[in-house]
Parts: sequence; structure tokens; C-alpha cells
Amino acid sequence: MIYLNCDYSDGVHPNILEKLIKTNDYQTGVYGFDSFSEIAKKQIKDLCNNQDLDIYFISGGTQTNVIAISAALMHYQAVISADTGHINTHECGAVENSGHKILTLPNHDGKLIPSDIKAMIKAHHIQGMSKIHDVQPKMVYISNSTEFGTIYSKKEIEELYNVCKELNLFLYIDGARLGYALSAENNDLDLEFIASHCDMFYIGGTKLGAMYGEALVVINPELRVDFQYNLKLRGALLAKGRFLGIQFSELFKDDLYFKLAKHANYLSTKLRKALVERGYKLTINSPTNLTFVVMSQDKLDELSKEFAFETMSQYDENQKVIRIATGWNTKEEYIDKLIEKL
Amino acid sequence: MIYLNCDYSDGVHPNILEKLIKTNDYQTGVYGFDSFSEIAKKQIKDLCNNQDLDIYFISGGTQTNVIAISAALMHYQAVISADTGHINTHECGAVENSGHKILTLPNHDGKLIPSDIKAMIKAHHIQGMSKIHDVQPKMVYISNSTEFGTIYSKKEIEELYNVCKELNLFLYIDGARLGYALSAENNDLDLEFIASHCDMFYIGGTKLGAMYGEALVVINPELRVDFQYNLKLRGALLAKGRFLGIQFSELFKDDLYFKLAKHANYLSTKLRKALVERGYKLTINSPTNLTFVVMSQDKLDELSKEFAFETMSQYDENQKVIRIATGWNTKEEYIDKLIEKL
Amino acid sequence: MIYLNCDYSDGVHPNILEKLIKTNDYQTGVYGFDSFSEIAKKQIKDLCNNQDLDIYFISGGTQTNVIAISAALMHYQAVISADTGHINTHECGAVENSGHKILTLPNHDGKLIPSDIKAMIKAHHIQGMSKIHDVQPKMVYISNSTEFGTIYSKKEIEELYNVCKELNLFLYIDGARLGYALSAENNDLDLEFIASHCDMFYIGGTKLGAMYGEALVVINPELRVDFQYNLKLRGALLAKGRFLGIQFSELFKDDLYFKLAKHANYLSTKLRKALVERGYKLTINSPTNLTFVVMSQDKLDELSKEFAFETMSQYDENQKVIRIATGWNTKEEYIDKLIEKL
Amino acid sequence: MIYLNCDYSDGVHPNILEKLIKTNDYQTGVYGFDSFSEIAKKQIKDLCNNQDLDIYFISGGTQTNVIAISAALMHYQAVISADTGHINTHECGAVENSGHKILTLPNHDGKLIPSDIKAMIKAHHIQGMSKIHDVQPKMVYISNSTEFGTIYSKKEIEELYNVCKELNLFLYIDGARLGYALSAENNDLDLEFIASHCDMFYIGGTKLGAMYGEALVVINPELRVDFQYNLKLRGALLAKGRFLGIQFSELFKDDLYFKLAKHANYLSTKLRKALVERGYKLTINSPTNLTFVVMSQDKLDELSKEFAFETMSQYDENQKVIRIATGWNTKEEYIDKLIEKL
Repeated sequence: MIYLNCDYSDGVHPNILEKLIKTNDYQTGVYGFDSFSEIAKKQIKDLCNNQDLDIYFISGGTQTNVIAISAALMHYQAVISADTGHINTHECGAVENSGHKILTLPNHDGKLIPSDIKAMIKAHHIQGMSKIHDVQPKMVYISNSTEFGTIYSKKEIEELYNVCKELNLFLYIDGARLGYALSAENNDLDLEFIASHCDMFYIGGTKLGAMYGEALVVINPELRVDFQYNLKLRGALLAKGRFLGIQFSELFKDDLYFKLAKHANYLSTKLRKALVERGYKLTINSPTNLTFVVMSQDKLDELSKEFAFETMSQYDENQKVIRIATGWNTKEEYIDKLIEKL
Repeated sequence: MIYLNCDYSDGVHPNILEKLIKTNDYQTGVYGFDSFSEIAKKQIKDLCNNQDLDIYFISGGTQTNVIAISAALMHYQAVISADTGHINTHECGAVENSGHKILTLPNHDGKLIPSDIKAMIKAHHIQGMSKIHDVQPKMVYISNSTEFGTIYSKKEIEELYNVCKELNLFLYIDGARLGYALSAENNDLDLEFIASHCDMFYIGGTKLGAMYGEALVVINPELRVDFQYNLKLRGALLAKGRFLGIQFSELFKDDLYFKLAKHANYLSTKLRKALVERGYKLTINSPTNLTFVVMSQDKLDELSKEFAFETMSQYDENQKVIRIATGWNTKEEYIDKLIEKL
Repeated sequence: MIYLNCDYSDGVHPNILEKLIKTNDYQTGVYGFDSFSEIAKKQIKDLCNNQDLDIYFISGGTQTNVIAISAALMHYQAVISADTGHINTHECGAVENSGHKILTLPNHDGKLIPSDIKAMIKAHHIQGMSKIHDVQPKMVYISNSTEFGTIYSKKEIEELYNVCKELNLFLYIDGARLGYALSAENNDLDLEFIASHCDMFYIGGTKLGAMYGEALVVINPELRVDFQYNLKLRGALLAKGRFLGIQFSELFKDDLYFKLAKHANYLSTKLRKALVERGYKLTINSPTNLTFVVMSQDKLDELSKEFAFETMSQYDENQKVIRIATGWNTKEEYIDKLIEKL
Repeated sequence: MIYLNCDYSDGVHPNILEKLIKTNDYQTGVYGFDSFSEIAKKQIKDLCNNQDLDIYFISGGTQTNVIAISAALMHYQAVISADTGHINTHECGAVENSGHKILTLPNHDGKLIPSDIKAMIKAHHIQGMSKIHDVQPKMVYISNSTEFGTIYSKKEIEELYNVCKELNLFLYIDGARLGYALSAENNDLDLEFIASHCDMFYIGGTKLGAMYGEALVVINPELRVDFQYNLKLRGALLAKGRFLGIQFSELFKDDLYFKLAKHANYLSTKLRKALVERGYKLTINSPTNLTFVVMSQDKLDELSKEFAFETMSQYDENQKVIRIATGWNTKEEYIDKLIEKL
């Protein structure tokens, strides 16, 4: 079976394994106070071209989102998300369980647009003293690339960030798939731009070559005070933190992280081209590693003998929308084989 | 510097690394639905001599405790712990943050005794309808080995469990250091006995040879319904769950887990003997891998040039209580060198 | 200024005041254990024709909703509500703050319909093991009358309840305005029917003649166990509980509660007739004490010199939707005066 | 039966009832935006000799405590309380349910002392980076009068407040029985002093003549921002807020609040004198309306035919500690009768 249902069916990049072996006999400081973690943080700070930010390594994305969001909000504050946002649809109510409502806005190909946010905030404040019956919006959550594989442009991020600053909102970017976004063909963003146009973001490792681990970058000084308590509070402070450091230091050595993403994007692009040529309908125009395509049940049944996909929804009576994901270790032969069978 | 301050300064056991390398190219199911996790679960079930229980692998101890405790309690229920319990002193209020009060009882060498629990429950229920002003005690939390390195006997566990059943309380055992406990000289417990004398417990991997990971064993059928949602809710459902499975399947192959613990216990026992012979005062009679000893500031300063210890408290004006920990990879020559310098 | 913006601008019904005076010198039991509370509970049980249910008096509606909802849900469970539901729009995220996500469905004139619920539950369970990434739906929340003044029929409630039982969901009815609903012209519900077709509901006092107070009726035996802890936990257990009992015992003496509602409904119906006759557009066909009407800004400015309304939204460039509410103490002359000025 | 078990068995002060009757026909603004609430707030501000503070009226004490404490704390912060503090012993874990740990210190006749607080904070910060494993102490909670009826002096409050400022902690005073404290014989505090020596406090109405209601005074500007959302979030924003305003405006007219307290204190002092004269042992030296006395089971049985007391604990095999409370409406003849029977 060839797994194309998600970008985390594969193992870990060999460079990481090698480094684990090479450093295994060392004794180090714990809870993230070790030299490997220091190196990885330095690499990320350099890529952000900003030494004045804090970086925390956390085992998974949902935990990272809960930590980032709850750390920034007072009990009565809410986070704004696209209705399709990961925190709203696939985290088992984790953000709400931390006490905070998610206010949803309609997504535009998985993305938020500034005018919707402005309208929501205006509607809140226009109520005067009655606004206290509503939860107070205080943060905007976006993901890049989105749950649909789409990406934000410099202009879009800049406009969102300006609106957030104008309206006194934090901007937080879920980068579970940030590598894929930054390596997409039409992308004009980089880490430096992102780190100067939001209050917090994270760089996903799990979905791009790591065993586990996300790097949360906290930029806004207001949010950086005593931030690390939040990790411990959420059970996210791993004792053997060095292993997170090792993974990220390898991923950010010689641009490995972006090279892996490029490989996956390349394969998905190749696949999409083939799909379109063969008359398949793509439901979204994704430039990254996720492809959403309409497929008849018959074809799906046939392909499912060899390939695993993610079923998203029923398209019509006889067709489904499926998600095809490529990852750091997807072999080109897999995609060629799939194309052949389309 | 030789790190003897804790049992998680070392790397990961080579068997695990080897297995990681050997299986790295596999594609597998995700979120714990993979064959390695299945194997590890089977091994644990066999050791428990009970196939009818659920096992979840979680990245760290605090997260495991919060999941186990909050999953079992209604909003108005509390967990009983020794005042020295890890959940009460070293988890940044994580249990309370999940909404539940910790009711503390005085520890007896780190342990709880049945009569204290009985008295607390009696005091609650004697109030009749007024008891609703108090939080309702519903679970007992103990750790084995304890934060002081002490262990429970069969008789003690049996009495605690009987009291819990009599009083309609869940018994939960934090086994962050369970391997050390079950491998101690005077221990008469084993996994089978534990799995039949509590409602939930966990087996710690992080402190005994793993990179990360704890195995939560849920026994009581009442607690097993829909349990897995709790993992996702707390951000604990790792996408690449196979790596947890691989670690535990290696640890429980050929009793490796217990062999590693025995090694650490042996070194600590050797050290304690040497300390006592040289007139040092041990503040607690631990049979496992943690040693608590009174040391003059001068001696501590001298030794600290080569060895890292954990300072626990000021003993008197000139002396401190320090904790010395051995682990799976502590070299005997380290302990010999330390003994020499005492 | 004549206040028609809401149904809680007025004082308390004189019968209640008289009873307060008459009983003021009594000393009574506290926290709801007093004879007045017992009498009020008996009256409600009689009206429900069911002695086997529990009743709790709580000071306000948001608190009641949070208590009812959080008491019924495990940490990972969610409540389903119309997007216009009070818990979703006007409670400052209180339900989420108690840890539970609100899953919204589109409203149909403020109401939920069974097929939408069925589709949501089906979509959850069709995911198999992957459903744990979603929060688990476990309760349905409706309000009667709704936030739009509309009411449910016997048939509608019955169908909703059957769906809930089939799908293993609790049905909870927010009755902040239950009196108005049960006294509406085309209503075919009564307390007995409601008490046998849901798991919990509350009868609103604040919006219908009381100073403060809602009566939460807990029917499902599964939910009744230890329920009262939830009140104390949420700070809702008033020390001088007798005053809640006195209010409800007066409201349910000689059908006063329903007579007051009929009066308010009558005035609103009269007003709506006049509005329609004069060509005003009603945005919703409410049979109860709330009227939603489109009004030009000019007209609104003119009327606002004498009358207070609630502005709901901008209808078009020059018109707004306003809410006009009548209450237990609204004088017919007020409505006549308003009609005259329309 | 004469109820001396608590200070909330009695009705409401007649002045309040009269005012309710006189103002019942008024229509007013809602949710606390009414002229009566404005008047009451002004009276309290005048008594505090500070116009620059915010006042919120809330229905009960537990709710007030949760609002005050949770509003001031970040998710990872804790409140320090005496082990006997109301929040720690009689609020069903409400503070923990809001997500915050209560760190307890030993009580000194129900009170906290600065040196204990200093030692706790020092112990936290001495850990350096390891302090993140502990919850962060951020607020000190005291009650005045305490749960034992004891009171703080100016000097004691001043020292506590100075320590709090020095250590960057908020000081919050639970004044459920503040009237009794400020009216005690040796008291040297007044509202002005309190309002300038803490960050928040509340003035209890329920236990001193009101039907329901506590006045939360928020002083620290840092805590005042957007504070009112917290009320709504906790279900504490009563729709008919005017009734809270009416009660407090009556209580603070012509010092009624303090006169009522003096009456209760006088009766308790008279009782204590009689108890001591007859050889009864008082377990605490309370100057306010609560008396704690050792009584044989036989005597208690005899008196319980006519008087209701609160049993606190078993003193020895044959004796109990009971609490006797006087209130605003306790008749002197009741106390005389009790004294006679001692």
C-alpha cells in the first residue's frame, strides 16, 4: 500500500537519525536547556533575521495551538478563525477546552480576508456597553499553507497584520505546513517577512521530516513574558528536550527543510497537471503538497487497492472529493504509478 | 560534567535507535494506528496478563497525568494526592487548570495510607447536604516509585485499592518511575498485580531509556468508553504515533526495561552504602534510583565541579539535602569516582 | 421614556413583594433547604405531573445554561445549538469557558430541525476512529420561545427528542421565555409535555415577573446524580435561597406566570397587527412578546424620543431591524400610544 | 427554633423592602446601568474616598471570588490563601475549576502573615528556570473578618500590602463579613484604608441585611481594563441589576450597614462573656459575630431542641466545637435565653 492520505505516514529524515546516533552518548541539560536546542533556536532566529524572539519546541500541532492561543488571551477573549481552520474542525474542541471561544468567519479558499475581520470587530464594538454580552475578539488565527493547501501572499499577510494592529488583535500563524507554503512556486514569503508580520507563528516539523516537534516562535514582547510556564501547564515541556533541538537543527541545516518541501510540492504539482490533463476536476487550486480532486467511487475503489487517500466529502451521488498528499519521502515512482492508473 | 541530577540527562537506548533505523522507510498508519504500536500494546497486555484493557502512548508525564485525571472526573470532582505528589508540586497547576482541585494528605515517606483517605472521605460525607460546599473526592493518585524513591508493597497497594473500591474512588498510579520500583530489591509487585489493583496506571518511558513516551494503561471499563478523545483534546495524539510504539516494543522486549532499571538501582544502592559507611545522613530510605543525602555546602561545592546534583532544600545553616539520581546509562565508573571523592 | 427594548426593565410582580413582606421575619434553612423552596418545587412538579425530577433555583439564565450544559458533558463533549442560540451569541463565551465547544447548525426561524442534527451526527461517526479529531456532540440546546420569539410545536419537540434519544444525545431547553411560548396563541405545548420530552429545561423568572431567578428542572435520572455540586461549583448556590422559592411559589400560584405572559403576548400581537396594517415589514413571524420590524432611520429617530427599542441590525441603507418587547407590566396605553405614532 | 447557625437565616432589612415597594413601578436600564446602581456605587466610592475605582454588584460570594481571582490571573498563575480560607475549603473547587491552583499557607487564627508569603515566593523564584515546573504565585487572598471571626489590623493589612507590592502580587480581600470586621471593638480599619491598601476587595451584603448581593470594588487600574466581561463570562451579570443597586444604596444610607454589624457583634460579645464566665472554652478569640466554643454532647443535645448551631469538629470524645452566629436581625432576647440555658 502506498500512503498518500497524509504527510506524516513516513519515517524521519536520515540526517536526523544520523545525528541522533552521533550524539546519543552525550549527557545534556534537560527541559530544553541544552546546546542542541540552543543551536536550533539560533538557526531559526538567523532565518528570521531577528535575535530578539523566543522559540519553544513542542511535540505536536494541537498542543502548540492551544499553548499559543491560550497564552495570549484573557479568560473572556476569543480567537477568530476561518470556519475551515484546523483549530475549529480537527482539534476535538481543545481551544474551547482551554476556555476560549473560536469565532468563525467564512473561508476564502481556506483563507481569511481583512474586510471580514474588520466587520466582525466593528459589529462587536458598535454595541457599546452591551458588547460585554459577546465574547471579546482578541486574536486572529490563520494557517499557511491552509487546510486546503492554499498559501498567503506578502500582500495578504501584510494587510491582515495591519488590520490586526489597527484593531488591537494578535495575529497568529499556524505553520504546521509552513515549509510547503514557503517552497511553493508562486510564494513570495520567507521566514523573515513572517517573523516581522505577526505576533506568533509556528514552524511544523512533524509534517515535514521530523519524528515529532513544532517550533513556536513568539515575537511580540508583550506575549513573551513568562511564556514558558504555559508549556509546562499544558504538559508540553518534554524532559529530554534535546531531541527536539537535534531534529530542528538538522532540518534547518543547509536548507534541508525547504528542499524536502520543494520535493513534495514538485510531486503534487506533477500529479495535478496529470489530473487536469485527464479531465479530473480539482476542487481547489492548491500550489503545495495537498491535492483535492473529484473522483468517481468506481475509480476510487480501484485505486484504493494500491493507494491510500483521505476522503473529504461526498461530491455528488457517484463521486467523492479526496485529498492526495505528498511528503518529504514520497517517491516519484509512486506518483508516476498513480498517474499511470488515473 | 557527570550528570546525576536526574534520570533523563542521557540519550536513548541503542536498541531503540537500531529499530528506528531499521524501520525508517516504512509507511504506516498514523495517530497510533500502526503495527508497532499494536505490538507494544500486546507486549504490555501480556505482561499485565490481561488482554481486556486499553493502552495509550503519550509524550510526557504531566500530560499523561492530566489526561488520566481529567478523563475520570466530573467537573465538581477532585483527586486526592500526597502533599509531595508530582501533580501537586511539579506540574505548574496543570491538573487544576483542567478544572480539578487536588486534595492533599500528608505523605508517609512519599506515600499515602488508607486511614488518611478514609478519614477524608468520612469528613466529606458526614456533612450531609452541606457536603456540596466541598469539592467531591473521587480519585486517589499515588506514584510508584514515589518522588522520594520509595516503593509500595503488594499489601499496601491492595489495602489502598480496597479502600478505594469501598469508598467509590478511582485509584490511579503514576508510574513515571515504575520500572525502578518493580526492579527494587524488596519489591513484591509486578505489572500483573498492578493491572488488577487499580483503575489506571502509566509506565514511564522517558525516565527509563526512551526518547519520550509514557504508556497509559486504562483498566476500569467505566473509564475506557470513548477515552481516546481525551488524548486529542489535550493535544496528546501524536501524528507519527509509530515512534512511540517502536520505543515501547523495544523496551519490553526481553525485559530490557527492567534490566535497565536494575542497573540504575544497583548503582544507587552501591552509592547509598558508601554514603552511610562514610557517615553521611540519608533523609529517606529509598531502595530505587534516587538518593537523598545531607551534604555540607563545602563538600557540595567541591563535588559540583565534576558532578551535577539536584538541590532539594536547606537542611541546616551549613548543609543541604541533595538528590542523586542514576539512570539506565549511568556508568559504574561515575559512581565509583563519586564514592572515592565523598 | 417607555422601555420596550427588553422584557426586564420592569420591577417585580406585586404578589411577590407582598409575600416578601409577609414572610420577612421568618428564620429559615439556607442554600435552598427551606419550606418556600419546597413549596415552589412541589408546584412545578405538579405542573409537570411528575414528582420524580429535581429542581434548582438559579439567579440568572447564563449561569443556568452553563450549569446545565457543563453538568451533562464530559470534557471532550460538545453541545449543538442554532447559530442564533443565546449560548452562542450572547453569553460571552461562557459555555466555552466551562470547556465545551458549541457546534452550530443553521437556524430555521430561530429553531433547530431534526434532519440537520442527524446529518451532523452522521458526519461525526462516519469517520470511524478518526472521529476523535472532532469534538463529540452529546447535547442539543434549543430555546423556547427562541431568540426570535418563535415557538416549537408538540410535533417538533417530539421529533427532536426522538432524534436525540436515537442518537444518544441529551435534549436541553432554555426556557428563559418559556412562559411566553406556552401562552402563545397557537401553542400546543405545556409543562407536562415538555417535562416528558427532554432531559433538562429551565423556566425563566427574570423575564417574567421575578426580581431574579430561573428554575432548572432536571429530569433524566442519569443527570440527577450529585447534580447540586454543579451549582456550588459555578457560584450559583445562593445562601438565602428562600427568596428564590418565594418568587417561584408566587409565580406559579393561580397560574399567575401564564397570565402575565398572556398579557404581554396580547399586547405584542396587537402591535404586530397594527404594524402590518400600516405596511411595516416584520422580519419574523413571532407569536410571542418579541416583535422584529423594519423601520426607517427617520421614524426610529422620531419614536426614540419617547420609546426605547433594541436595534438588531441594519436592514438596508436607510432602514434598521428593531426589536420591540412587551413584558408582564407593559401598560396597554403604552402600546396604544406607540401604535398611534407609527 | 432559633437559628444561630449562620448569619443568613434571616430575611432582608425592612428599609430595603420599603425601597423595593416605593420604586417597583419604575422602568430602568438593565444589567447594572440604572440610577439605583449608580447611587450605590457613588456611596461606596465616597466611603472609600476614591472616585477612581470600579464597582460591580454580584449575587453571591463564591461567584465574586471566582470572578475576582480569575480576572486577575493568567492561566499559569495561582492564588495564595490560608489553608482555612473560604476559597480553599467551602467553594467546591470553584477557583480550581476556573483553572487556577490555590497555594495554601498555614493560618494564624485564620489569618495570613507576611513572612510566610515571602518565604513561599522566595522558594519559587530561587529555582531559577526550574520555577516553571511550579505554578506562579500572583495573588494573595485574605478574608476580613476571617472564617474564624478574627480581624486584621491596619498594621497587618499594611504589611501584607507592602509585601505584595514588593513581590509583584495582587492583594484581594474577601469581605463577605467585612461589616462585622469594621464594626468590631478593636478594629482600626475603615473602607478608605482598605481601598488604598489592596487591589480588589468585596463588601458582603448577603450576610448583613441584603437578600443577595456582594459589591466587588476593583481598585488597581491594571485590573480594571475590560473587567465587566468577566461578570458576563461567569453568568454574574444580572438582567435586573437595579435590585442590587437598591439594596446597597439602602445599606449604605446613614451607616445602616455598620449599625447592623455592631448589633450582631454586641450580641456575640455578650454571649462570649457569658460563656467564659460559665467556664466554657472558646477555641478562638473572635471579636465579631462568630463564636467558637467547646460544648459537651449532652449540653449540645439539650440546647439543640431550641437552638440551631453549626457543628465544626469533634473536640474530644465527649465534646464538640460549635459555631454560634449572630446577625443583623438576631433578637437580644434570643441570646439572653441562650445564656440562661448555658
